[in-house]
Amino acid sequence: MAIIGFIGLGTMGAPMARNLLSAGHELRVFDVSAEACAMLASEGATATENAIEAAEGAEFAITMLPNDTIVSGVMLGEEGLIEQLSARPLLIDCSTISPDTTRRIAHAAADKGFGIIDAPVSGGPTGAAEGTLSFMVGGSETDFARAEPVLKNMGRLIVHAGDNGAGQVAKLCNNMTAAVVMAATAEALALGISQGLDPEKLSSIMANSSAGSFVLNRWNPWPGVMPDTPASRDYAGGFQLGLMLKDLNLAVANARDAGASVPFGALAQSMYMMQAGRAQDAVRADFSSIQKLFTRPA
Amino acid sequence: MAIIGFIGLGTMGAPMARNLLSAGHELRVFDVSAEACAMLASEGATATENAIEAAEGAEFAITMLPNDTIVSGVMLGEEGLIEQLSARPLLIDCSTISPDTTRRIAHAAADKGFGIIDAPVSGGPTGAAEGTLSFMVGGSETDFARAEPVLKNMGRLIVHAGDNGAGQVAKLCNNMTAAVVMAATAEALALGISQGLDPEKLSSIMANSSAGSFVLNRWNPWPGVMPDTPASRDYAGGFQLGLMLKDLNLAVANARDAGASVPFGALAQSMYMMQAGRAQDAVRADFSSIQKLFTRPA
Amino acid sequence: MAIIGFIGLGTMGAPMARNLLSAGHELRVFDVSAEACAMLASEGATATENAIEAAEGAEFAITMLPNDTIVSGVMLGEEGLIEQLSARPLLIDCSTISPDTTRRIAHAAADKGFGIIDAPVSGGPTGAAEGTLSFMVGGSETDFARAEPVLKNMGRLIVHAGDNGAGQVAKLCNNMTAAVVMAATAEALALGISQGLDPEKLSSIMANSSAGSFVLNRWNPWPGVMPDTPASRDYAGGFQLGLMLKDLNLAVANARDAGASVPFGALAQSMYMMQAGRAQDAVRADFSSIQKLFTRPA
Amino acid sequence: MAIIGFIGLGTMGAPMARNLLSAGHELRVFDVSAEACAMLASEGATATENAIEAAEGAEFAITMLPNDTIVSGVMLGEEGLIEQLSARPLLIDCSTISPDTTRRIAHAAADKGFGIIDAPVSGGPTGAAEGTLSFMVGGSETDFARAEPVLKNMGRLIVHAGDNGAGQVAKLCNNMTAAVVMAATAEALALGISQGLDPEKLSSIMANSSAGSFVLNRWNPWPGVMPDTPASRDYAGGFQLGLMLKDLNLAVANARDAGASVPFGALAQSMYMMQAGRAQDAVRADFSSIQKLFTRPA
Repeated sequence: MAIIGFIGLGTMGAPMARNLLSAGHELRVFDVSAEACAMLASEGATATENAIEAAEGAEFAITMLPNDTIVSGVMLGEEGLIEQLSARPLLIDCSTISPDTTRRIAHAAADKGFGIIDAPVSGGPTGAAEGTLSFMVGGSETDFARAEPVLKNMGRLIVHAGDNGAGQVAKLCNNMTAAVVMAATAEALALGISQGLDPEKLSSIMANSSAGSFVLNRWNPWPGVMPDTPASRDYAGGFQLGLMLKDLNLAVANARDAGASVPFGALAQSMYMMQAGRAQDAVRADFSSIQKLFTRPA
Repeated sequence: MAIIGFIGLGTMGAPMARNLLSAGHELRVFDVSAEACAMLASEGATATENAIEAAEGAEFAITMLPNDTIVSGVMLGEEGLIEQLSARPLLIDCSTISPDTTRRIAHAAADKGFGIIDAPVSGGPTGAAEGTLSFMVGGSETDFARAEPVLKNMGRLIVHAGDNGAGQVAKLCNNMTAAVVMAATAEALALGISQGLDPEKLSSIMANSSAGSFVLNRWNPWPGVMPDTPASRDYAGGFQLGLMLKDLNLAVANARDAGASVPFGALAQSMYMMQAGRAQDAVRADFSSIQKLFTRPA
Repeated sequence: MAIIGFIGLGTMGAPMARNLLSAGHELRVFDVSAEACAMLASEGATATENAIEAAEGAEFAITMLPNDTIVSGVMLGEEGLIEQLSARPLLIDCSTISPDTTRRIAHAAADKGFGIIDAPVSGGPTGAAEGTLSFMVGGSETDFARAEPVLKNMGRLIVHAGDNGAGQVAKLCNNMTAAVVMAATAEALALGISQGLDPEKLSSIMANSSAGSFVLNRWNPWPGVMPDTPASRDYAGGFQLGLMLKDLNLAVANARDAGASVPFGALAQSMYMMQAGRAQDAVRADFSSIQKLFTRPA
Repeated sequence: MAIIGFIGLGTMGAPMARNLLSAGHELRVFDVSAEACAMLASEGATATENAIEAAEGAEFAITMLPNDTIVSGVMLGEEGLIEQLSARPLLIDCSTISPDTTRRIAHAAADKGFGIIDAPVSGGPTGAAEGTLSFMVGGSETDFARAEPVLKNMGRLIVHAGDNGAGQVAKLCNNMTAAVVMAATAEALALGISQGLDPEKLSSIMANSSAGSFVLNRWNPWPGVMPDTPASRDYAGGFQLGLMLKDLNLAVANARDAGASVPFGALAQSMYMMQAGRAQDAVRADFSSIQKLFTRPA
């Protein structure tokens, strides 16, 4: 078992840390919310005063933070982990941030002799709680091999996507595509159903033909077609539209930085943004609620 | 076994007619190409001089024709089947045409006491030859039940989508979605691979996550990822981009007629059209060649 | 002065016919609405029983009709003008229909020795009433020259765009562009104003820079920026969104037939369609009401 | 006359500085290129060793720099102007950067007692050389009034758009719209001309109707229609496509930050990016070369 520093105990980070505790690791945790720290401490972790204290002397320092600015703040600069730590834990950043920022941090880390991987996840709070997350990992073979057993304590599928940044790129490519598939499926269902087709029948025909997809076959956006989808409980639960929009924003920005043209991803960004602006709570509904943009008022 | 009139012996119609012959039906065939008629006659069908002669006295009259104008010409007007036939075969239109035209023909047929279904197919020339087509059927329960055994001689999956026109609508919804999924998958692969990710690894990550789809998992557009896809043989074979564009055109026109907004389908129409215009033979390549639009010259 | 058959006395046709009467021409009118005929008859025209009676013996036969099907019905087939008329008036079609239909009619007309031009208009009911319409004309130099004096009685700007169909093409190119410019201007205004910029100041800056356009400088879509625009009277009057959508539909269909990729026109079609579906009366508002699609609820 | 620190002597900055010299101001210049400094020094400016030295003791400190990172580096942080200067020149940032960065810098400046405005320009190198630039200014009334006379020495139109950041927002709204208008105009011209219409005639019809715009009427993208446009000299000169793409990138990012949906701007970003990737030098051509994306090979 290892000593692990864990920084960021939000909706995702807290249950991930909990699974590491359950696996028998020694955990030193930090979060800007003292309450979050206290909660984990009550379950067996050691609460610390800041990120450096959490990571100092650990074998692994895991970060699970909300955005580029916060990750950069923890990692870089005079006050960052890379400058301040006297030992060299393997840095594992599970945050979803831009590949450019990830690469910049990786260079800085390498300069100081740190091993580092990016390991963004998919699976959401449920996956985090159940320890069934997928990790898409960017970094060297060596660092991947070293991290894999620890990641296994929090997830089921651990894939090595390539060099530093490749984990982020893979996640953004995946989520951008899923966002487009969802929106395209929703507009097609609306088109067919508006002409009298039965939602279940149409879904079933498409699911068994060339329009079949994870989205259509498992996450159908039309209410009532599948009993257990967010669509069938007024789009509650699932993967929030606001989070999908965050990933689309990162993906389109990544395409811009890479000089790639992504007209479908860019259209998806615009359409999810439009749906996000239509009602107060629209960002908190599951992303399959993009269906509403294509459904005419009765 | 039944007496069947079969009108339209092209790339799809000829092998479909052949399977009906093999099943033991008595076939009376017609095509504007005398050669096509002669070929089927040499295999046991009876060649006729026109559509009316082919259909007169038959239990089923099957049409497999290229577009709205030709189907309307055969069915409607003073010289059409509906006006001219003295008996009442069940009309089975396997052509892919606009739902509006299909409904107009169905009304005319019903007025004269004909049973009629629309039964567009998916599966391409290979499916037609092997008798493994899928049929998406629009029409009454009674007519569907009557047609089903005959369709089974030509295909594997026979689905009843709804009333007259619903078969066409289901096919267009399916193909429009597949076209978008293909293009979105292609742009995402190009985005990731341009940043150094391995095509197989990225495909595999996405295929096993929320971006998974029939298109990605079975028809991967990146050359070399799957040995048996069109992409891996320079986009030869498969489903021609020009035919997908025809279906997209029908789908967007159908959306217009239905008052539905289909921004993703419309963008796909524009992008496939752009790719179609880039080279002499671009329309004959498999539709996964939309990949080329997103791949920068080396 | 000439004898003129005038077919189609709707919102546009009636005031156009009135201007021909005022100019001293002898008018024989027909419309499916007997009421519309009676109205014009009370102003000096001769009401007739059908299109053929209106056009027989005239020097000019003018049609102003709502769509392809109706224009084709009046012109083509056994019962159409081209087959039935014993004399040969110059056919002037002022309807906005697809260039393909226009060309098909022109071929049929030429086969029978008719001169024919397409002469779709811009300027709306106000322009029709005031005789200030613009006519975009397709046809031969000779036919254009012959028609010009008559068109001058109904409009101010008469342009010869090219061969038969070119008038329709020019109108569709113009209106498709105007629709995109309006929508793009609206989204930019919404973007700036949502960040605190003053609507008038932002409009003025853009109007005097590279974003300037007829649309921005004369038809500003933001309420209150210009006192006399539809936007400043809750989008009443102006050019109905439903009519712009009809033109966009024709333009996108024309692009499809011409093998041209029009991603911006296609996106505009989708966005105006989306706005059209958002409220009961949305299609009757001025097309600058596309602004509403980009304005977030307060 | 005033003492002015001028930082950034590139394609735009050098001629702007030159105009300030001509107006009689005392100039202290800095650029990372010693050569650029030496050039200005030979014309009467005082070369300095760094930005702080250039700005210290001046009444105005003008920056004209390529991107957010460089402007932030010069302004913010321990080593930045805001922290290091002992006196308080009015800070005038003429760079085009993101409104968010501009606002962040403005807050930092205000905290330390600096006056500051953002004053991005339009008009390009020619406008810079001739002193005919337009300045879109964000900042307080007082700071605007103080800066105006100095800006007048470099430009003709000086507009006050609103608070800090409003200059950037106005410029991005303008350029995003211009980019869409150009692309939409280009696709419409290609559509019409592919059907036989004369480029000049079609342009003239649209220019005098609702499709008229600065872009169409002054910057026509079709070669040969206007003698003096970039299109008529193989797209040389003008406003580089790569620079328009930079502005589109900033505009779409600004929309993302503002929570605004900009489907047309986003599509433009994708289409200009696609054109940028089609050839080695595509980014250096005038942005009207987006025409090439819509023109089919002969």
